[in-house]
Amino acid sequence: MQKQGLLTEVIDALCCLPGVGPKSAQRMALHLFQRDRGGAENLAKALQLAVVKLGNCKKCRTLTEHELCSICASATRDQHVVCVVESPADVWVINQATDYQGVFFVLNGRLSPLDGIGPDEIGIDQLEQQLASQQITELILATNSTVEGEATAHFIAQMALANHIKVSRLAHGVPVGGELEFIDSSTLAHAFSGRREIE
Amino acid sequence: MQKQGLLTEVIDALCCLPGVGPKSAQRMALHLFQRDRGGAENLAKALQLAVVKLGNCKKCRTLTEHELCSICASATRDQHVVCVVESPADVWVINQATDYQGVFFVLNGRLSPLDGIGPDEIGIDQLEQQLASQQITELILATNSTVEGEATAHFIAQMALANHIKVSRLAHGVPVGGELEFIDSSTLAHAFSGRREIE
Repeated sequence: MQKQGLLTEVIDALCCLPGVGPKSAQRMALHLFQRDRGGAENLAKALQLAVVKLGNCKKCRTLTEHELCSICASATRDQHVVCVVESPADVWVINQATDYQGVFFVLNGRLSPLDGIGPDEIGIDQLEQQLASQQITELILATNSTVEGEATAHFIAQMALANHIKVSRLAHGVPVGGELEFIDSSTLAHAFSGRREIE
Repeated sequence: MQKQGLLTEVIDALCCLPGVGPKSAQRMALHLFQRDRGGAENLAKALQLAVVKLGNCKKCRTLTEHELCSICASATRDQHVVCVVESPADVWVINQATDYQGVFFVLNGRLSPLDGIGPDEIGIDQLEQQLASQQITELILATNSTVEGEATAHFIAQMALANHIKVSRLAHGVPVGGELEFIDSSTLAHAFSGRREIE
């Protein structure tokens, strides 16, 4: 009878966040309204604004409030090289870790027929149009190295080859700083067969 | 350059939640706007409403959107027995675990002079008025069993005794299901000295 009213509504609403159960949600809600009302207000406003304005980039499908995201709109990026990733988070890590200067295509998912996710759900029709328009010279497949990610990469690779576009996949191998002893056999096999000659 | 705009604002705003760092916040934001926009909208609305309406109960200081919380406003609760707790979460657990039928007084904190938290910051002046009004017959001190919690309980106990009000503290002892071998010596000493005769 005590857990009712607005506070309970906030707690229930917080449970929609990944990794947040009823106990954490309760702790979060109490923290916000006992100690950080400014934070709560801020969060409410940011969410509200983002819900209304945030959409997908017309070209690469990443999340943005503009028609084109900052990468697609950039004049310094090579618009002819496209890196295909599963999520906007992958765009961020690739930009942080590498000096990649091309653009991206964000699938916002991966092929997963059992979950009803086919090519159209992850925007592959849109990617196909871009490939067919002959403006892309190279396609880099950076989907995750999971079963679904590999299947998605394979599917897109076939499409790119049919359009005579150069296509590559991220290298598999020993992680930097990794010890051979502790690496799984599949990764080691890939690293072995993919060994590079030192010149 | 890529992490900018509304999505970044949401990520930054999520970081105000306890236990949420930049990585979790990013995962939460992407989850909301890729898979659960309804949840994001819901959360924004619940927070916004709660920020505007949620206040403290006039009588027991717990969080509520009404003048009196549901417990203080209840006709079936014994308004003469008051249980003093540190947080609204304690009210919930006591109501869930026990058949306590009295009311509460929520300190929303504990005495902690080093952090600048004195009696007035945790509403002890308000509690003193209630004690002085002679409407309270029994006071149960259910602050946490930490150094600050014990100090707070001691402080309030002195106040209650000065007003000739019966005052008690939650029992210390062996947790139910606990094995003696693994219980810390302080708890065991309390359990030993507080042993109860079987009649």
